[in-house]
Amino acid sequence: MRMVDIITSKRNGNELTDEEISFFVEGYTKGEIPDYQVSALMMAIYFRGMNERETLTLTTEMENSGDKLDLSAIRGIKVDKHSTGGVGDKTSLALTPIVSACGVPIAKMSGRGLGHTGGTIDKLESFDGFNVSISTSEFIDNVNRIGISIMGQTADLAPADKKLYALRDVTGTVENMSLIASSIMSKKLAAGADAIVLDVKTGSGAFMKTLEDSKALAEEMVRIGKGAGRKCIAVISDMDQPLGNAVGNAIEVREAIDTLMGKGPEDFTELVMTLASYMIMLGGRASSVDEARALAKEAVESGAALKKLGEFIEAQGGSADQVYHPETLKVSDKCINIKADRSGYVERIICDEVGVSCMMLGGGRASKEDVIDLSVGIRLLKKRGDHVGTGDDLAIVYYNDEKNLSEAVDKLKASYVISDAEPAPQDLIKMIIE
Amino acid sequence: MRMVDIITSKRNGNELTDEEISFFVEGYTKGEIPDYQVSALMMAIYFRGMNERETLTLTTEMENSGDKLDLSAIRGIKVDKHSTGGVGDKTSLALTPIVSACGVPIAKMSGRGLGHTGGTIDKLESFDGFNVSISTSEFIDNVNRIGISIMGQTADLAPADKKLYALRDVTGTVENMSLIASSIMSKKLAAGADAIVLDVKTGSGAFMKTLEDSKALAEEMVRIGKGAGRKCIAVISDMDQPLGNAVGNAIEVREAIDTLMGKGPEDFTELVMTLASYMIMLGGRASSVDEARALAKEAVESGAALKKLGEFIEAQGGSADQVYHPETLKVSDKCINIKADRSGYVERIICDEVGVSCMMLGGGRASKEDVIDLSVGIRLLKKRGDHVGTGDDLAIVYYNDEKNLSEAVDKLKASYVISDAEPAPQDLIKMIIE
Repeated sequence: MRMVDIITSKRNGNELTDEEISFFVEGYTKGEIPDYQVSALMMAIYFRGMNERETLTLTTEMENSGDKLDLSAIRGIKVDKHSTGGVGDKTSLALTPIVSACGVPIAKMSGRGLGHTGGTIDKLESFDGFNVSISTSEFIDNVNRIGISIMGQTADLAPADKKLYALRDVTGTVENMSLIASSIMSKKLAAGADAIVLDVKTGSGAFMKTLEDSKALAEEMVRIGKGAGRKCIAVISDMDQPLGNAVGNAIEVREAIDTLMGKGPEDFTELVMTLASYMIMLGGRASSVDEARALAKEAVESGAALKKLGEFIEAQGGSADQVYHPETLKVSDKCINIKADRSGYVERIICDEVGVSCMMLGGGRASKEDVIDLSVGIRLLKKRGDHVGTGDDLAIVYYNDEKNLSEAVDKLKASYVISDAEPAPQDLIKMIIE
Repeated sequence: MRMVDIITSKRNGNELTDEEISFFVEGYTKGEIPDYQVSALMMAIYFRGMNERETLTLTTEMENSGDKLDLSAIRGIKVDKHSTGGVGDKTSLALTPIVSACGVPIAKMSGRGLGHTGGTIDKLESFDGFNVSISTSEFIDNVNRIGISIMGQTADLAPADKKLYALRDVTGTVENMSLIASSIMSKKLAAGADAIVLDVKTGSGAFMKTLEDSKALAEEMVRIGKGAGRKCIAVISDMDQPLGNAVGNAIEVREAIDTLMGKGPEDFTELVMTLASYMIMLGGRASSVDEARALAKEAVESGAALKKLGEFIEAQGGSADQVYHPETLKVSDKCINIKADRSGYVERIICDEVGVSCMMLGGGRASKEDVIDLSVGIRLLKKRGDHVGTGDDLAIVYYNDEKNLSEAVDKLKASYVISDAEPAPQDLIKMIIE
């Protein structure tokens, strides 16, 4: 088998055989097939597409290209969750304790990554002493003992995807639904859960800007998940403005705890409860989504979910005290209020501008080596549809370093679009794909 | 400017600007842009195409990527010729002395390359003592003194094309008319002639199998040539069977000399006279193609063309005696006759099979390091349309080494397709594109 023939075959519009897909994924991972042949194939796939079988085969070949997490020693149906990402997305922090409190084991591997804020792992480090670098056996023991553990990504999951994504990123071959879906799903499958709930964001702050594209990606991922023998559901949710009110790290953890205390922002609470319902249902703890939602609600109202978060933090070296007293999580006391320079309705809040503002404050990584300042961040006091008067506070910036401060403040201010007309309300949950 | 943006722009169907094309050709040649980005761009071009301006810009950027031959010290209009290649294509050997004898200076740089037989340079080495490695000043002096010189490719002409072609060859991105045409023309433009006659082959033994594709390539190349300010004409000629009767090296030189003596095979003679006519006309020595053809005929009949070949060979270290006594050019005396195993008409002779047979005998290079045996080769005694009886001689194989002999003989035999019906005659010259 020769790589040039595989490229030519796809270029000519043929389906690739499973053997051909296996040949190139394996050869590329081992470094036997060079980047320049793989990038040409990716561009041919961009133009010719892949059918359901090809997409599933590519995904499972990438899943099998490196380590796989074996969760079989954990009792019960393991349910994982993935978000396609956005601004203010602290969902896992509130979601996982609720689901765990309802009896579904949470064994989650999370990354740090690049972006506007840190990843889940970074945010968790806002708890003093919290340790993400635990061993796999400790991880599994914790889940069996208290029902939840989240660890940093130590295993080499789907290295083929890692290599392929880095190549696609610099060769104009990212934007293909099959390739995007297989990239996400290969890592999720390798992470070993029995069921996966996907939070696919849609809107200006999301990877997929239109509902049509978000739906197509969600459908593709659900097809792959089911094709690989996992239970799989996707929730399409709004990312046309930041999620909740907090953007940063410690400040987002505080908001997640508020939500577990029943006093979280309305939009964030709604997303968490929706995702929790589907996770609880897929985890076999409820026979309908309504029944699951009632369980989730009870877990919050009874304090069981908050207690679960405390157990989790304590099991990994932190103190449950900080869970019960979130004001002890360090948020900088240097702050600046952003004020409206006109009256009207908040028509929109440009997500990416808010995110970049937070990154400029030091709350996110532009490159792998950057160190995150967990104590900086943004609190949005007004959201889409809110009425404001001239001089009203729109948001608060929490900072430490004054270096990029004025630019960050300007960006945040510019992210608010205020108009005379009240904007039409938008649903937070757009669609469920199952 | 970022390469990934150039790739994405072409992928999205936009025209590339001259600056973008210049950026990637220069960056790639210098090694600043990696193979994997260029191969992705080539695949995007495969799908999206390039318009006339983009194609011309790519060609001239590649032309300017390395050395360029400066022929300005040569008096008169310098006319070059290029063939897209085929089996038995010894055209330059007979053509150039005729054109030179008619007063058009021939200053030609030729390659060795890979293929069924050697290149023009290899074939010329059949003359004892002939030296292809002359300096550029000697080359120019020879042209000014005797009107003709052919040298091996010493200068680094169009290195961008060399690098790009090697990449396209292994990434399934060869088959695009703009890329093929710009590759050929960049080298021809860098070789410095004022006018170029293109011999575009068509048929089973040609790079372009159909007349439609050959015409498209010819038109694209003529457009580029004219766009770059050169006179340019393309002749589309038959390559559905080998050209002439000889396939090899010394044996092809003998046939070229026979043709200069007025006793060459009909098809080969016709092609040489047609190409010569256009070269003489573009060289300003005749005002019409008919007038030019009369001059070419006269050059052969008077012996002036043969004499010119003798002067050329002598000027580069060989002996004119071998021109006048071509039987002294070493062709192996070990030979095998191939006989017809049925009677009928030669319906076709599969070009590639004849070519591979010659290569197996040692007459061509499969890889750069191979040493060619100039004395082996094939003489076709029967051509398309000839009637044969069972047991009649079809061809003669001249060999030295018995190693691959039986396989070479079988291949040659299999190349003859004999049928009951007489095939319809085919024109040698299919079309002129000017």
